[in-house]
Amino acid sequence: MDYYSGYITKLIEELAKLPGVGPKTAGRLGFHILEMSEEDVEDLANAIVDAKKNIKYCKHCYTLTDSDVCPICSSKDRDHKTIMVVESTKDMSAYESVGEYKGVYHVLHGVINPMAGITQNDIKLKELFERLKDDVDEIIIATNSSVEGEATAMYISKVVKPLGIKVTRIASGVPVGGDLECIDNVTLLRALQGRTTI
Amino acid sequence: MDYYSGYITKLIEELAKLPGVGPKTAGRLGFHILEMSEEDVEDLANAIVDAKKNIKYCKHCYTLTDSDVCPICSSKDRDHKTIMVVESTKDMSAYESVGEYKGVYHVLHGVINPMAGITQNDIKLKELFERLKDDVDEIIIATNSSVEGEATAMYISKVVKPLGIKVTRIASGVPVGGDLECIDNVTLLRALQGRTTI
Repeated sequence: MDYYSGYITKLIEELAKLPGVGPKTAGRLGFHILEMSEEDVEDLANAIVDAKKNIKYCKHCYTLTDSDVCPICSSKDRDHKTIMVVESTKDMSAYESVGEYKGVYHVLHGVINPMAGITQNDIKLKELFERLKDDVDEIIIATNSSVEGEATAMYISKVVKPLGIKVTRIASGVPVGGDLECIDNVTLLRALQGRTTI
Repeated sequence: MDYYSGYITKLIEELAKLPGVGPKTAGRLGFHILEMSEEDVEDLANAIVDAKKNIKYCKHCYTLTDSDVCPICSSKDRDHKTIMVVESTKDMSAYESVGEYKGVYHVLHGVINPMAGITQNDIKLKELFERLKDDVDEIIIATNSSVEGEATAMYISKVVKPLGIKVTRIASGVPVGGDLECIDNVTLLRALQGRTTI
């Protein structure tokens, strides 16, 4: 039985479609929205619609942005000869929040995943290779260390290396603060293989 | 630095205002919304605005609904002589999802909380007492077992009992499946005091 009302039920159903939001969380969020001022509710709804409507790819790095060229690609303070290849805009923002990286990015919007039918043509790979015609010193591959992320890294490396451009991969290993006994075997092996002299 | 774009940042900021949604979750939700179809995004935004705009109190039980009288109050299958008093529409829906309760509800929209400046006049108490003029057999008080919930229960009981109406309180005790050693002392004491013969 619909013991709320059509509108509340619809709201909770829509919220429950979001990732990581179950029916209980959706209920909590829904009732919070009903308690918000009408103005705040309008702001939230407009933010959702506006973001979707106004978003496009940066024509250089293909990150999601609202102008033709994203703030990073249009910045003169960045090193445009170093390109970090990431899977998503979210991953790019993770590295940006560190604040140390001064190069630019290339967002693939996915990884090669034959099982899911995603080939090299379905992600922004030819757009990456296109950028290599400009003066590029180094490609840093920062795809996730999943099987697909590794395969994509290998593929990029195979194409880019013959062009005489340095290709590097971010390090795999034990996370800082990680407890050795809680870490999986593959990561432990990677950490050993990637050991550095101190 | 705003490394996304104004619209994405605005969206993530708005989402991060929701309860239990931190900046990371807001980012995940935000990018999920950007990946949704334009139609689904419109549906979500409309559900938010419509719910806020069309919601009102049921004129009997004061639950949030979209008609003058909520589905429960307008149902002939419910026992209108038994009123369960709850703090919020959410609490009402928690009991409705059990499916066993056949009476009606009264939603207080809060509890008496002098520390926060909420008196008996700020919640739907006089509306409850107004309903007692009709034929009522029992008031079941199902406010939370917080200090404020208990105080509100006591207050209702004091007003209603002299009218010759039965007033009951839902049981406090060990939750089903609960582990005794993990349960706080007050709950253990309540469970002991409320013991029943088997």
